[in-house]
Amino acid sequence: MAIATIRKPYLVFLGNAADIAECKTGIGVKEWAEADCVGQWRNATHITLGLPDMGPDEAFSAGARSLLIGVSPVGGAIEQTWIPFLLTALEAGLDLVSGLHVRLEDTAVIAEAAKQHGRRLHNVRHADRSFEIATGRKRSGKRVIMVGTDCALGKKYTALAIARRLQERSVDATFRATGQTGIMIAGDGIAIDAVVADFVAGAAEALSPDASPHHWDVIEGQGALWHPAYAGVTLGLLHGSQPDALVLCHDPRRSVTNWYPDYPLPSVPDAIAGYLPLARRTNPAARFVGISLNTHGMNERDASAAAHALAPLGLPVCDPLRFGLDALLDELLTI
Amino acid sequence: MAIATIRKPYLVFLGNAADIAECKTGIGVKEWAEADCVGQWRNATHITLGLPDMGPDEAFSAGARSLLIGVSPVGGAIEQTWIPFLLTALEAGLDLVSGLHVRLEDTAVIAEAAKQHGRRLHNVRHADRSFEIATGRKRSGKRVIMVGTDCALGKKYTALAIARRLQERSVDATFRATGQTGIMIAGDGIAIDAVVADFVAGAAEALSPDASPHHWDVIEGQGALWHPAYAGVTLGLLHGSQPDALVLCHDPRRSVTNWYPDYPLPSVPDAIAGYLPLARRTNPAARFVGISLNTHGMNERDASAAAHALAPLGLPVCDPLRFGLDALLDELLTI
Repeated sequence: MAIATIRKPYLVFLGNAADIAECKTGIGVKEWAEADCVGQWRNATHITLGLPDMGPDEAFSAGARSLLIGVSPVGGAIEQTWIPFLLTALEAGLDLVSGLHVRLEDTAVIAEAAKQHGRRLHNVRHADRSFEIATGRKRSGKRVIMVGTDCALGKKYTALAIARRLQERSVDATFRATGQTGIMIAGDGIAIDAVVADFVAGAAEALSPDASPHHWDVIEGQGALWHPAYAGVTLGLLHGSQPDALVLCHDPRRSVTNWYPDYPLPSVPDAIAGYLPLARRTNPAARFVGISLNTHGMNERDASAAAHALAPLGLPVCDPLRFGLDALLDELLTI
Repeated sequence: MAIATIRKPYLVFLGNAADIAECKTGIGVKEWAEADCVGQWRNATHITLGLPDMGPDEAFSAGARSLLIGVSPVGGAIEQTWIPFLLTALEAGLDLVSGLHVRLEDTAVIAEAAKQHGRRLHNVRHADRSFEIATGRKRSGKRVIMVGTDCALGKKYTALAIARRLQERSVDATFRATGQTGIMIAGDGIAIDAVVADFVAGAAEALSPDASPHHWDVIEGQGALWHPAYAGVTLGLLHGSQPDALVLCHDPRRSVTNWYPDYPLPSVPDAIAGYLPLARRTNPAARFVGISLNTHGMNERDASAAAHALAPLGLPVCDPLRFGLDALLDELLTI
């Protein structure tokens, strides 16, 4: 089911990005949806994603249907210097896709040009539709959700890698995006943390609707149950997802919550023990099928030691970037 | 701190209410804030709250500053027949206070009249302000929150009763409303389930700000941790509230979740065991100080038996309507 379907493929706009950190969105989309990127359009930057340079007319001729803003300056606003470029893109036949904090239509000339040319403006950080209250009704098909000991430690990456590997094994699988970059990669999804609180579990139900019995939805998680700001989002998403399987994402070097130094991370066993009864409320068969470690930046010996330390839990321990995911997928596919 | 302060006292509008069930809002406000109600205004109904009948001019002269819509027809819309009455109230000097699903300003003539006369329109079911992301920072003052095994089993009632009894004992205490009727009674508060998910814990932090060391905030809870639709709201509110004390609200005759017959209620011990570790995430000293049973409609013997059955838990078991709250307050005031 399309939630907020975006017309692909993309021309990726990098504007005047000052450094590579501002281009995280573009990098993520290129990494996971390169076949959906016909080129990049740069104004005044030396940053490159390695895509062919082109303008909107050439991109449209090459099949592009949306300009994706692949640069996120600090503050999340639209820069004045971008506006003529965005207007040119609309004129050339492209919709606009933005993950910025501000909405595209809040810039009046953009709203007017989109209307005049009949283009759509996608603000993927916002949830611009209403949802129903969750029903709790069991849905057909299978679901696996990423949960974590914290935010920003690899849930999106792990979910994308699982979905890709399942497809490579000829398993019918769909990545279900719950955050802005994931939505840009997938072309649809729901920015779950932008949904009004009452409707979060209902939005999660809408995100992974009834499917054929052997189909897997691979659901990008959000937040963490121990996070002092976002735990409610995590729980609503978990309940509405009714997962058959959970994957715990963890960074072995992180001891406290990002940005919240007074909040220590739970241990991996405590995290599993905390998530499981809550997941079983809406799916009594829910179980963990593996642990995804983010060992980026660790040497091989330390990464292996971190994985071995978790062996007593009896779950496959993977790192999609380093050890692969096969043991975890083998476990998943026993369900 | 005022969140969305409403000007009291009220003239309570009952319109053309077909039966008493449609007047729940008015009944709640009269019960808990009778001193704030100068009268009732009825169009074509025989329902009475027992308040003096009067129109808006007389009410304004008697001190009223807001017309509170005390009737909630099925569907939650504004009835066409009310509109001339609402316009007359605005003209007479009264703001409007509504707990309906629709916003007052969505009716154009009401929006225009409010603007023309300089009146405020309060939609207490909506959260018409933005909040910050929760900080997790420990705040001064003390807090007790109501949690439940389900929705709609006496959390608001218990919180109001605790706040009133604390004040009667000369304890500095404030009722903190998290739902529409509570907000009307208190004159401020936050409709927590209407807040965007990312900001729920932050809104809860704003609802009970730093206070003097001996001050108690008595926080109305929302939802339940086992509720398939609302658990995320419950958890965000719990985390942001950082409660020192929790009161478990329970209906001993209820075995399944209201409207969700496939979801059995947790037992009281399981509920306590479920809430406590989550509450301790943001306040390690959090503990339960009592159980509030809703024994309405049970005979005396069954009600006593239900209370006695929970004695092994070692917590005061109260019913604010039947057994009073003193044992629970005694326990609370040891903190």
